[in-house]
Amino acid sequence: MKDITLDMRRCLTMEADRGLTREMMEALAPRLDAALRAVQEAAGTGMLGWVELPFADPAPFLEFAAEVQGRYDTVLVIGIGGSALGTICLANALLPFHFNQLSREDRKGRPRLYVLDNIDPEETAALLALLDLRETLVNVVSKSGSTGESMAAYLIVKERLEAAVGAARLREHLVFTTDPEKGALRSIGRALGLRMFDLPPGVGGRFSVLSSVGLVPAALTGMDVPSLLAGARHMAGRMASSSGWDNPAAAFAGVHYLEDAVLGRRISVIMPYAARLRDLADWYRQLWAESLGKAYDRQGRQVNYGPLPVRALGATDQHSQLQLYMEGPDDKVFTFVGVAEFACDLPIPAPGPEGEALAYLGGHTLAELFWAEQRSTAWALAKAGRPSLTITLPRVDAYWLGALLYMLEMATAVAGELYDVDAYDQPGVEAGKKATYALMGRPGYEALAQEID
Amino acid sequence: MKDITLDMRRCLTMEADRGLTREMMEALAPRLDAALRAVQEAAGTGMLGWVELPFADPAPFLEFAAEVQGRYDTVLVIGIGGSALGTICLANALLPFHFNQLSREDRKGRPRLYVLDNIDPEETAALLALLDLRETLVNVVSKSGSTGESMAAYLIVKERLEAAVGAARLREHLVFTTDPEKGALRSIGRALGLRMFDLPPGVGGRFSVLSSVGLVPAALTGMDVPSLLAGARHMAGRMASSSGWDNPAAAFAGVHYLEDAVLGRRISVIMPYAARLRDLADWYRQLWAESLGKAYDRQGRQVNYGPLPVRALGATDQHSQLQLYMEGPDDKVFTFVGVAEFACDLPIPAPGPEGEALAYLGGHTLAELFWAEQRSTAWALAKAGRPSLTITLPRVDAYWLGALLYMLEMATAVAGELYDVDAYDQPGVEAGKKATYALMGRPGYEALAQEID
Repeated sequence: MKDITLDMRRCLTMEADRGLTREMMEALAPRLDAALRAVQEAAGTGMLGWVELPFADPAPFLEFAAEVQGRYDTVLVIGIGGSALGTICLANALLPFHFNQLSREDRKGRPRLYVLDNIDPEETAALLALLDLRETLVNVVSKSGSTGESMAAYLIVKERLEAAVGAARLREHLVFTTDPEKGALRSIGRALGLRMFDLPPGVGGRFSVLSSVGLVPAALTGMDVPSLLAGARHMAGRMASSSGWDNPAAAFAGVHYLEDAVLGRRISVIMPYAARLRDLADWYRQLWAESLGKAYDRQGRQVNYGPLPVRALGATDQHSQLQLYMEGPDDKVFTFVGVAEFACDLPIPAPGPEGEALAYLGGHTLAELFWAEQRSTAWALAKAGRPSLTITLPRVDAYWLGALLYMLEMATAVAGELYDVDAYDQPGVEAGKKATYALMGRPGYEALAQEID
Repeated sequence: MKDITLDMRRCLTMEADRGLTREMMEALAPRLDAALRAVQEAAGTGMLGWVELPFADPAPFLEFAAEVQGRYDTVLVIGIGGSALGTICLANALLPFHFNQLSREDRKGRPRLYVLDNIDPEETAALLALLDLRETLVNVVSKSGSTGESMAAYLIVKERLEAAVGAARLREHLVFTTDPEKGALRSIGRALGLRMFDLPPGVGGRFSVLSSVGLVPAALTGMDVPSLLAGARHMAGRMASSSGWDNPAAAFAGVHYLEDAVLGRRISVIMPYAARLRDLADWYRQLWAESLGKAYDRQGRQVNYGPLPVRALGATDQHSQLQLYMEGPDDKVFTFVGVAEFACDLPIPAPGPEGEALAYLGGHTLAELFWAEQRSTAWALAKAGRPSLTITLPRVDAYWLGALLYMLEMATAVAGELYDVDAYDQPGVEAGKKATYALMGRPGYEALAQEID
């Protein structure tokens, strides 16, 4: 296999009134092209800075990683949402499994990676008890520089760091990734004289995985950052050289849009058949949900759009969710993400005579069983009239992961055009933020605090 | 706080035509009582063996754990779906965070716990490379004794075990949990003379967490099994002593049923605000989806029911899903699961002058911020017309977790009565299983294999 493929055939085999038709697809084709063009023409402007991230020079991240190599045994990322999900996705996909449990030798000197993306006091305390902060580099990531959860965690960790290494050496253990000008984190970093990486203003959190947000931790833990970007550039090339339904991002967006708007299937289940892609689903969940879940479209009409992204995992969720997917309401589109090749495989030994019922497994490999389950699930769903897409990666490595992430970002942007919503804002979270300020007693929110009580 | 509470107030404050009303609730009350009675009267019969699990004697599990104490450094559970999700939920809730990374001393001699619940070849190979099988007890769990994924993993691990400890000592490293009579696992266990634990025939996988399925790994890793069951018995007592909307399981079921059937909110988002309850969501996902997602009701009518259970986590998913929850389609009911007390808390230090914008955080604790975020999210959703329930546990320990699990099982059974579906079968997964057999070349499935190709 030489490239990522998107197979839409299992969307086209439904009964007449429940399936995509060639006619629907042809009717949408001009809008798909217009949407792609709109995204490409706006590339680099407004909040479309992410489109150009694959073409940025990774040297600052690589140089920083080289400079501090061997100095830390652990990297702790403090961030939440878009400041964490991309990094978690990269780590799960590209670091060895159980990486944090390996010895320093088995890690070849690469530091462990932890991501603190919540404020549970027990969990936070346990993590701080586990880490030796004297050997830890803390990367605080917040675009706005004011995210309450991350700032609270930062204040706690900073105090511990000072106790562990002394105020004078604090700056050796802290690096910030934030807006180049605005926000509390930038001011603090300036005051403390810290190393800081800029998150370009035109890059929103959920589109930031290929920026400093994802690439600083990636470089520090020895992931192949140049290949990640090269794969994304490869996909950018495909974006430019294909149009309409031949363009994989546009096709992904188009299928989801038609399934929702025309056929009433509003739920998008993403189900990788590769353990390395497990956390891709959570990254996608944010991307799709925050970008497309909108009360108003760009014309100011109240629309309350929002396909629901759902995380699943093959084959595990066949034993948890498949019953519902097969027999429940016909309101879902499935996206299987498979791989053509695993880095290794395991033969399944034949059972002894006492296990004759399992003889059919013997002589196969685990990968063969995994692929058979993926194909079987897609087939059974289609047979029950449930549509699915299948994305296949040649293999899970930095290059193809970079390509996939970029493709899904582009698909989200194109879907934003089709729904005609602003894919880059998140006005719905403001009310909750203000309520938290009120409950925490922040000056200026007294009236709101009364209202909540 | 002296007991688990279920707060429904945020379901009752919507606009007239989008919210639960007292009238709807009163109209449903007799059916709620009938449903509760139906479950209680069938307790112990058919597939309702799970109702009586809290009253079973845990001595066999505890004795086994005592017998092998100190002999193994690792317990490896091989299972999938209902054979894994309960154990994962228990482990995340009741073992120390990062338990598998702690030294033997810090674990106080308790073995590490790994659950292999998938067949990814890279992941499986990595796990086997990590474990020293000479110090590992492998617990293979399958109700049917024929689950393809688990059997394949078993065959691979058994071969490695034999190589590591020799055929003669194999039985010291293997223990099976399966049906008392049927299935390949039972035959193999008999032939090899293995220690086996029975999974009672009247207990389905998704209702099995308080049976041998969950309790063998729990006892082996030193969780407080007696308290787990005592908490479940406490909840069983509440089930017997309360009725209608005063019964928390019936109320949970009733709200979800009315929100779906009357108000069109078919998506059930479960969002714990406690890291220890993170994997409760996946256990609930299977329970709710497989039990209620049904093509036919018990009268044989085609209904295609199935509320969609969605996993979320507070506060993290406020930065990923809340935008969609607030502004997207009004088709969701939220269940927040909070705790009244954490085992520890962390004060948030005041920022220096350079971080003045964060001053509102200083002097509070992390738990206070966490609680404020939970309350703010529920408030903001209600303000936007989105209903939520809040379950509060006095704290996360074995007792209250047992009570919560039992309550949610009972709620699922009651919901099954309200939807009038068989909550204990899963006919929808058969087609996919057969397709896998066909693709794996199992004799008798040749015609199907041709159809799939």
